[in-house]
Amino acid sequence: MGFDAHREVFRVHEGGKLKLSSTLPLTDRSALSLAYTPGVAEVCTAIAGDESLARSYTWRSRLVAVVSDGTAVLGLGNIGPAAALPVMEGKAALFSEFAGLNAVPIVLDTTDVDEIVATVEHLAPSFGGINLEDISAPRCFEVEDRLRERLSIPVFHDDQHGTAIVVLAALRNAATITGRTLGDLRVVVSGAGAAGVACTRILLAAGIGDIAVADSKGILHTGRGDLTPVKAALANTTNRARLTGSLVSALAGADVFLGLSAGRVPEEAVRTMAPDAIIFTLANPDPEVHPEVAHRHAAIVATGRSDYPNQINNVLAFPGVFAGAFDVGARAITENMKLAAATALSEVVADALAPECIVPTPFDNRVAPAVSAAVAKQAIADGVAAPGPNGAH
Amino acid sequence: MGFDAHREVFRVHEGGKLKLSSTLPLTDRSALSLAYTPGVAEVCTAIAGDESLARSYTWRSRLVAVVSDGTAVLGLGNIGPAAALPVMEGKAALFSEFAGLNAVPIVLDTTDVDEIVATVEHLAPSFGGINLEDISAPRCFEVEDRLRERLSIPVFHDDQHGTAIVVLAALRNAATITGRTLGDLRVVVSGAGAAGVACTRILLAAGIGDIAVADSKGILHTGRGDLTPVKAALANTTNRARLTGSLVSALAGADVFLGLSAGRVPEEAVRTMAPDAIIFTLANPDPEVHPEVAHRHAAIVATGRSDYPNQINNVLAFPGVFAGAFDVGARAITENMKLAAATALSEVVADALAPECIVPTPFDNRVAPAVSAAVAKQAIADGVAAPGPNGAH
Repeated sequence: MGFDAHREVFRVHEGGKLKLSSTLPLTDRSALSLAYTPGVAEVCTAIAGDESLARSYTWRSRLVAVVSDGTAVLGLGNIGPAAALPVMEGKAALFSEFAGLNAVPIVLDTTDVDEIVATVEHLAPSFGGINLEDISAPRCFEVEDRLRERLSIPVFHDDQHGTAIVVLAALRNAATITGRTLGDLRVVVSGAGAAGVACTRILLAAGIGDIAVADSKGILHTGRGDLTPVKAALANTTNRARLTGSLVSALAGADVFLGLSAGRVPEEAVRTMAPDAIIFTLANPDPEVHPEVAHRHAAIVATGRSDYPNQINNVLAFPGVFAGAFDVGARAITENMKLAAATALSEVVADALAPECIVPTPFDNRVAPAVSAAVAKQAIADGVAAPGPNGAH
Repeated sequence: MGFDAHREVFRVHEGGKLKLSSTLPLTDRSALSLAYTPGVAEVCTAIAGDESLARSYTWRSRLVAVVSDGTAVLGLGNIGPAAALPVMEGKAALFSEFAGLNAVPIVLDTTDVDEIVATVEHLAPSFGGINLEDISAPRCFEVEDRLRERLSIPVFHDDQHGTAIVVLAALRNAATITGRTLGDLRVVVSGAGAAGVACTRILLAAGIGDIAVADSKGILHTGRGDLTPVKAALANTTNRARLTGSLVSALAGADVFLGLSAGRVPEEAVRTMAPDAIIFTLANPDPEVHPEVAHRHAAIVATGRSDYPNQINNVLAFPGVFAGAFDVGARAITENMKLAAATALSEVVADALAPECIVPTPFDNRVAPAVSAAVAKQAIADGVAAPGPNGAH
């Protein structure tokens, strides 16, 4: 359709989607003297003497940096920082609308891992948490790992962990509906990028033992010599059946197909799955298995699209995850906190559980409070936050 | 007085002073589909094809980064990034309240010039302009020079240029009231830090030929071997009379004292100034010359304090400077744009000019529009912005 300033999508984006304002009216000398000089000097002096006071007297304790280098934006690929900015603004708007948090888009003019890490490390005192976004694999893994190691604030790559939390929540409910436990499931994952790796890891952590992961060359197995370190590690912890063939061959008898790659899967392969199959076909806008095809062979179908039931949407996770971490001043997001988020999310729809309702809609206002309460409680249990006046969970 | 959570100054700072919000309500699927996926992909694609569209369809074209390393905060010195954050939040609030601009505080966990420059360069695509703040001299000069060279957006060290613009505006009016022109004045500047250097430079550019600058060791002259490169350059362009003594000796017969250093000046020295002397004693909260003492010997007195007339307050300059630059998409802030800002600011009080009214108050709502119009017009004249639909000045 191309650029046309008169089209609605361009009109709603005009001037950007975020607005920053002062929480204090600065309309007379006394207000100015309190909020700015000379009054502010007392607040600065207090924080200089006890940095923990920054949590109470600056905005950073509820402030997220949404950081991207623009290399893996939506399905558009490496479009650079300026073109990525509308997505990051949208993400920041979602933090505000869904959890009442402040979030600032930071798009970077570098794709070098060392430079990304150094830049985020240097600006970290400005923020309460770092949401990494749309950074291509495998660089995204190293960026996150190194920042988690160096910073004492939450670092969360949403393309990995937001997706993983919502997938696990949905799969837990799908298993319940079909009369299985997570441990019963044989899962085939299509895609070994950011989402594929993180989903596989969280499914393993949740007790699913039989997972085969495929990239574009076929099933990951320990005999392959073409694997990145991250994929090689996955090959070691998955593929219990020692499969070596294609994604299609792995689907025979599988209980779950988890599509995170946009690679199309033929109906003949879908037909070979186990009875009461579960198909999460999440590529957007073109699912790996068309939802109508999936419904012919599966008991439960989820997509990444808003125009079908069971939308796997990260907005079900990231606002509550950061809100919960901030509520207790958590220094990190642990694996247990992600698992707790998934469990809490799955429980939101307990009373309405049905094949077409395995996750809540993004507009269910019970979601963020449920996720944040679970994340906060787990942060204290894991020792990354102290219980206290701000953290009485 | 120390930290006490019940005191008003701490109560007004609780939770910080800024709030970010979405300009679009995201309360149903169709709004979400336009503002976020899938709709946003069209905006990204358009910007990827023509980066100039980022000016219309992201928030960055009216977004300032307020960047500090926390090394020279108010009169408090090197208190670090966390303790500096309340000042930067206040500055961001002033951008919003006085010019309707968005501004984000970025405090840095490094004081290394190379690292500061690299960090700001990498995050620059997120912003429309860079306001450097409270970075100690002489590093501040190099940081600004290098960023101006590398970035094609406005870079403005407010401690230098904001102060310089307001001082020049005030001095122009003070000269008018006392029946002199700028070229007539013999000026003594106390302080060769960020503000002292920038004020001296703008006064030279405005046509004041006779300026002596003193640091804590005395008058800058070409025979001194202890000068930084920036001070050595000032010694070459000032001190027409080749003075070599102390600040006090230079004051004899001077028309103007400009205090930017907090070093106290005795009344005996002030007494030796020329008739109808002009004293700008700007150290805050303790002026170099107490205002009552200054009034005994001077025709016109200005301070940095809000509780005396003629407050030299940077808020008279920076909101309008950035607003004017943004209005026309200026790629830089030129010296002429600063001079134009000063002239426009001085003219705002033309109809009320008086010894106690040489600058407007910060709450005079004619200030930002007057400054921004002058800056925008000069940007076009200087060729750093194109006249056009957004810049019809």
